[in-house]
Parts: sequence; structure tokens; C-alpha cells
Amino acid sequence: MPLRSDWSSATCPIARSADVLADPWVLLILRELFSGRTRFDELRDATGAADSVLARRLTAMTEAALVERVEPGAARSPYRLTAAGRETLPILHAYARFSRATDPDGPWGLTVSCARCGEVALSADWCSRCDASLDADTTLWARRSMGDVPFSLAGDRA
Amino acid sequence: MPLRSDWSSATCPIARSADVLADPWVLLILRELFSGRTRFDELRDATGAADSVLARRLTAMTEAALVERVEPGAARSPYRLTAAGRETLPILHAYARFSRATDPDGPWGLTVSCARCGEVALSADWCSRCDASLDADTTLWARRSMGDVPFSLAGDRA
Repeated sequence: MPLRSDWSSATCPIARSADVLADPWVLLILRELFSGRTRFDELRDATGAADSVLARRLTAMTEAALVERVEPGAARSPYRLTAAGRETLPILHAYARFSRATDPDGPWGLTVSCARCGEVALSADWCSRCDASLDADTTLWARRSMGDVPFSLAGDRA
Repeated sequence: MPLRSDWSSATCPIARSADVLADPWVLLILRELFSGRTRFDELRDATGAADSVLARRLTAMTEAALVERVEPGAARSPYRLTAAGRETLPILHAYARFSRATDPDGPWGLTVSCARCGEVALSADWCSRCDASLDADTTLWARRSMGDVPFSLAGDRA
């Protein structure tokens, strides 16, 4: 179920992944899943999405295999990112990088750093100090709304 | 004029830039502007957007200072990316990277490479061979739909 036009068969790799992922609510839901929030109510409160908005996105994200239920069949089961869902991290980082690049003095409430060396990351997916990629296993976030304490990103390793 | 909810005052840098940029049509319009297509008719034909869809996006992108008219005031003036618009490149690359990472055998019609060394880029914004950032001035694209010939990205240096 695409949220808008169906580009799931596009050969342009930008169009193909934009199909579900180029949506503000989907990005905020991914942000919260990476931050360890997994239940419908938690996701609703943290994103500010209406129930119907959130439910529609979670359905599209499940069909796109970005998220799955921890207990498939249980009505109130929490959600978690799949391996593919964890590959969306550079997209979130690219949006954050754009805000900082175009408004360096903004009141930005998210700091991205490398879990190996601690360097604050300027790239969406690369630690230049380690000369290695930054992925969901090697990235720390600190969010002002969560006390500015760096934390590891939630995984699919439960 | 936000396309959906107004997050232009959000302190989360993901939400802030998602305001206008997390939209499939906006991403395709940016793709075509980087590819050197600048006129309304060219953008419409290359993206497949309806006139009303394209006009609404170009208005939002102009208000967000991502694009501007080459001849302000002229009704049929072409569009071009502003300096801020050129900062969106890593977002496009992050979407493309996601498609390749999750479906390596897909029929992908876009190759991103470093203009300095020729290395095909895997990162959204970093050339690991040059140990330097990949931005609109240092990136080449080759698109199958445009003959697979590498080209420099269109700039605001006109």
C-alpha cells in the first residue's frame, strides 16, 4: 500500500525508496523506533501523530518490511525495526545534516556520534576519524528531549 | 506553505527539514534540477507529475528557498537550485543508497561517483578514497535514462 503514487517498480533508486520513506510521519516514526520506543501509544505520544495517521504509516512500513511486530498475532504487540528498517538510518541523518548545514545556529536537539571513537558525525553514514561506515550498530544519538544522554540505537537483535 | 503539517519551527533537525523535503515529488524535482532540467515543461515530462502537483511543489520549494527563478518576474523563467537547494544532495543519495542496500540486484538506473577520483560512491556524502566530502561540486551522476554518461551536477553558479 503506497502512501501516494506507486513507484515500487521504478528503476531510479531515489524514486523506488521514496515510495514509502519520503513521508514526514514515517521519518518521525523511524526516529522513535531507533530511540527505543516500540509501542503504538509511545509512538503516538512521541510523534504527535493522530491514531489514524500512525496506523496507516505502520501498515505501510510493515508491508514494506521496514518494521515487524515483536509478537506477530498479538493485537498490542510492540513494533521493531527489521534489518531493512535499520538501513534507513542514513536517510534520517541526511535530513538532520541538511537542517544543520542550512541553519547552523538552529536549536538542534539531536547529536549524532560514532560509538567507536566518540566523534560527532557530520556525514550521514561515515566516520572520517575511524574511516569506517556509520550504521545502526556503530552510531550513538543524544536527544535533548531525552536528557541529552548518548544512547545506542535500538536493534532487531531482540 | 508546508505540504502537510508545519514543522518549520521543530527543534528536531529531522522534523525541521522533513517539512518540505520528505515528499516523493520534491525529491524527483530535485533529481531533475541536479540533472540540468530547469523548465516547467521539462520537469513535468521528466518526473511524470501533473501540472498542479508540480506547481504546488515548486511554490513550496521556492518559499523554502530551495529553488529560485532564473529571471524573477518572467512567467516562463526556468528554475535553478539555490545554495540551500544544493545541500539536499545527500538526502537524494541516502534514498538511492537505501534501495541498493536492500535490493543489491535491482535494476538501478543511477550511478553516483566522485568527480575527483572517479570512485563509485557508496556513502551519501563522503568519498572514502579522497577522504573528503562529496557535494554538488564534487559529484558526478550517470543515469541510464540519459545514456549512462557521467555528468557534473547543475549548479547555482550561472
